[in-house]
Amino acid sequence: MSLRRHIRLCNDYRPERFMPLWRGATRIGLVRRDNAEALRRFPDVFAVAPDGVRLVAAGDCAALTAAIDRVVERLLDVGRIAAWRNESFAVGACWGAPPIFKLDRGAVPFFGVRAYGVHLNGYRHQGDVLELWIGRRAPDKKVAPDKLDNLVAGGIGNGHGLFETLVKEAQEEASLPADLIAEAVAAGALSYRMETSQGVRDDVLFLYDLEVPLAFTPRNTDGEIVAFEPMSATAVVERVRRSDDFKFNVNLVIIDFALRHGLVTPDDPEYLDLVLGLHRPLD
Amino acid sequence: MSLRRHIRLCNDYRPERFMPLWRGATRIGLVRRDNAEALRRFPDVFAVAPDGVRLVAAGDCAALTAAIDRVVERLLDVGRIAAWRNESFAVGACWGAPPIFKLDRGAVPFFGVRAYGVHLNGYRHQGDVLELWIGRRAPDKKVAPDKLDNLVAGGIGNGHGLFETLVKEAQEEASLPADLIAEAVAAGALSYRMETSQGVRDDVLFLYDLEVPLAFTPRNTDGEIVAFEPMSATAVVERVRRSDDFKFNVNLVIIDFALRHGLVTPDDPEYLDLVLGLHRPLD
Repeated sequence: MSLRRHIRLCNDYRPERFMPLWRGATRIGLVRRDNAEALRRFPDVFAVAPDGVRLVAAGDCAALTAAIDRVVERLLDVGRIAAWRNESFAVGACWGAPPIFKLDRGAVPFFGVRAYGVHLNGYRHQGDVLELWIGRRAPDKKVAPDKLDNLVAGGIGNGHGLFETLVKEAQEEASLPADLIAEAVAAGALSYRMETSQGVRDDVLFLYDLEVPLAFTPRNTDGEIVAFEPMSATAVVERVRRSDDFKFNVNLVIIDFALRHGLVTPDDPEYLDLVLGLHRPLD
Repeated sequence: MSLRRHIRLCNDYRPERFMPLWRGATRIGLVRRDNAEALRRFPDVFAVAPDGVRLVAAGDCAALTAAIDRVVERLLDVGRIAAWRNESFAVGACWGAPPIFKLDRGAVPFFGVRAYGVHLNGYRHQGDVLELWIGRRAPDKKVAPDKLDNLVAGGIGNGHGLFETLVKEAQEEASLPADLIAEAVAAGALSYRMETSQGVRDDVLFLYDLEVPLAFTPRNTDGEIVAFEPMSATAVVERVRRSDDFKFNVNLVIIDFALRHGLVTPDDPEYLDLVLGLHRPLD
């Protein structure tokens, strides 16, 4: 078993199956070819050509959002999209750009728009042992039920900023108080592009590390995590290497942590593939 | 001024100006088209075709090294290569693979073979201030004279391993004793591909962090660094942002350090370009 296989799994993407989604001269998504065919029914919103799909509806962000929501409703009816998630993700030209429209999280893979998340590695020093706080996801989670997870993680949506999302999720998921989460240290980002049953995840995760006091025990309040446990970071990395116990993208967050903290070293024949593979260039 | 410009400078590469250098089915280098023409004089060693150069000489690593050294000698005579560096770099299919031949460091850009280096960020906590030890390169250095540098840096050559190189350079460049350098923490790697007057640098740098005791003052013994100074890490990052005082690739090492330690945060509009741009995929 290897660490690199997790990067391969999260980058299982066949470009020939997808077409660009354009707004003007800006590519804003990736639509699977069979999904593009399903968009031909909405010519007032999307123009489907052999080489791409164009968002042609007129109007401002609110008008486009409403028009696309109506399309999503009908794609739900025909089973192309599984469910509303009732969480809106901003779709823009790039991170930080003003939103062109907002899209329900449930429709994000169908349109292959880039989604942004934030993950927090909560660690502590128990004597000489570096430990990571690991959560177990609830069995009723839509994505990756029962899998192991970071101390805090969440998608950046509903108009919240990045750090605001981190503070909110830290409170809801782990009861981390605001003054503690304020100590979190930005530690980079990772990217991957991964086909799913409904389309493609084109994800960027912002990464934070937080040293959690020994006296603090995380407690979930939103029902998304059933239990937290501190585990030795070395054991966590070995478990990532040898199992699929962690949520698919959490493996990547832990590999990144391991690389930054010397838990995986250049002696590992996969080292360069790991360091470079976690950072898929955006296009 | 921006941080990203340093990444752009280190990735100033026009692929159309270069041809692959092949050994069998393995690409081992990148030869500029005008340099490839100069290799036509050595048909017993290189076969030059419109779409690439092939290393056709027969023999084992020692025989190939000798044959290529003879070519290098004649390229020196005609000014295509500036000087012997008297340091041999292993050329292989990838990091860790057995060497196909060894090449003098001075000829590395001509053949565009991948070179590997190691850089160490030496840091300390002076009260609440995170400081980095910064060296100034000697005025007679062939590359980047007078520029600012990391505490320790060096190319991986002469048959030394990665950590062995780090220990050796730490001793020569900064008088860091072996028991202190043993505490260095592997923290990742970065990659770039940059045209030079003689060809192209296709470099991978392995990165280490080391917390240096307050009582320790580095002292150079090999004449490559004229002075060391501890500087606040925040000031170092701002100096990288606003000046070209640092050696071209040291800027990248410091940007990487800044990203890992929260000195540059996602508020920076360049953040994702920095995180992803430091990690050029190997091809």
